Amino acid sequence: MTLDVALGAGAEFEAVREIVTRTGGVARGVGDDAAVLRLARGDRLVVSVDAAIEGVHFRRDWLTPREIGWRAAAAALSDLAAMGATPVGALLALVLPAEWRSDVGELAEGFGEALRFAGAALVGGNTARGERLSLTTTVLGQAYAPVGRWGARPGDGVYVTGRLGGPAAALASLREGTPVPAEQRARFARPLPRLAEGRWLAAAGATAMIDVSDGLAADLGHVAAASGMRIVLELERIPALDGIFPALAAASGEEYELAVTSSLALDVDAFLERFGVLLTRVGHVEAAHHGDAGLETRSGGRRVAPPAGHDHLTR
Amino acid sequence: MTLDVALGAGAEFEAVREIVTRTGGVARGVGDDAAVLRLARGDRLVVSVDAAIEGVHFRRDWLTPREIGWRAAAAALSDLAAMGATPVGALLALVLPAEWRSDVGELAEGFGEALRFAGAALVGGNTARGERLSLTTTVLGQAYAPVGRWGARPGDGVYVTGRLGGPAAALASLREGTPVPAEQRARFARPLPRLAEGRWLAAAGATAMIDVSDGLAADLGHVAAASGMRIVLELERIPALDGIFPALAAASGEEYELAVTSSLALDVDAFLERFGVLLTRVGHVEAAHHGDAGLETRSGGRRVAPPAGHDHLTR
Repeated sequence: MTLDVALGAGAEFEAVREIVTRTGGVARGVGDDAAVLRLARGDRLVVSVDAAIEGVHFRRDWLTPREIGWRAAAAALSDLAAMGATPVGALLALVLPAEWRSDVGELAEGFGEALRFAGAALVGGNTARGERLSLTTTVLGQAYAPVGRWGARPGDGVYVTGRLGGPAAALASLREGTPVPAEQRARFARPLPRLAEGRWLAAAGATAMIDVSDGLAADLGHVAAASGMRIVLELERIPALDGIFPALAAASGEEYELAVTSSLALDVDAFLERFGVLLTRVGHVEAAHHGDAGLETRSGGRRVAPPAGHDHLTR
Repeated sequence: MTLDVALGAGAEFEAVREIVTRTGGVARGVGDDAAVLRLARGDRLVVSVDAAIEGVHFRRDWLTPREIGWRAAAAALSDLAAMGATPVGALLALVLPAEWRSDVGELAEGFGEALRFAGAALVGGNTARGERLSLTTTVLGQAYAPVGRWGARPGDGVYVTGRLGGPAAALASLREGTPVPAEQRARFARPLPRLAEGRWLAAAGATAMIDVSDGLAADLGHVAAASGMRIVLELERIPALDGIFPALAAASGEEYELAVTSSLALDVDAFLERFGVLLTRVGHVEAAHHGDAGLETRSGGRRVAPPAGHDHLTR
């Protein structure tokens, strides 16, 4: 592993050792210029990178170091879930300010927990000092037939996993300084990348898939644009956590649930039984005419303005 | 490509478009959760990540934005060269402060030039705002039989490509505010990852290989430790740029030349003819006894203290 280091004398090797040991036995190939991996024969490589930066993507007083580590890995792994891919490895580029130095072990533990959850090895890294904590995660996966965003077809059903709105509601409470209900906090602080679910959906005939990071409405808009289709989202159908309005649920970002289109009706009961996670039909795909590809939101059968997207901490 | 963005409204899509267009036609798979790549059958995946951070790895007044982009990609690609791997793709996670916003096109151009030099596609990215410019580059390569650091054996010859000392001498001049000779500046600002050379060396029977990023002495120390061997480096043999003392050349970091051990004598004339680059025998490998694996530096046949390693901007 290329855990290259620019922390200054003394601290550096200790930090690397802590990262490798406290990610918990998932490190592989330590001590070379680059890591070497073998993919399953015939599979393609699926790869993505995601950054989590203090003050942009999270705040120190809202999350524990362990949660920050988990979330950084989970957010990146979710991109593999959205392709129906199986995780293989991850690389962590860490920028570590002096005031975070004592937290590196807990950051690594949370990061490693998410990797173990996903069955991925830590195969590389880079550590540098800096003024803001950041974790840049590259994830490597494999899939025989990865599912993109561009395959939605007229008549497809549109489905989403889980129940939405937790992260948006948790963020609102954190900003206001009011208590955060446990279920909302869990969805915000420890999101679960839907990896096994993504593979199930890919095998069940998903024509397009995306993870809900910008908000369901915004992400379905991405699918519609990439597919050149019109996607109709029915607000009343959106599965939300208790007490959360559909419009908030549709705008809530960093959910890491999966939104999927399928020409075959998906067996939502079998999905629930297998994963203990809801799968809900929330709309359908129509052909676009006259360049009107995009998302149409409906409520009570009537067209309504789409909910605003999620913009990290800037809203 | 997951060019995810957290720059704030307006600027964000423009920055991404600039990155994609100005890397110059090497972007692939734009607009999905993750990029999909196919490796050559039987080849292994070789992967590494490297960060370039303003104030830690470079200073704004020392390099143009285009050079900063080139160097970030070249440094990461050099890790693939050291494994004898062929580059396939790269992902760029960019942290872009407001005062660098107008330079994003030039940064991307330099980054893209290095990718084209290497034959690698830009297959993913992430853009976020922040206070310090940083470019975190993940590189993906393929090799049937990657060369590690751990295979040096007693009796092997030790070789290094190119002529060393340029970056250290350039850095010293930049710090002192004195003029930097063109050849030194080129080696510092636009290092060439030795990719074709690395594949040639791997095919010629390299037993261990490393790129010179910490300085030749320090990096040969890494090979010696990983291989459990004693490596003898003869200072007088080190090929240096004109006017640079061997000890400075041996300590000069971010060279991105390759150091290699081989049980077969390497044809240095054929190498020079093919690549226009020196290949010089600088020492040999001995068995370690009583736990004395490591580097031994000699001058005039006598043991001397090893040159200090390179520590980015902190020295």
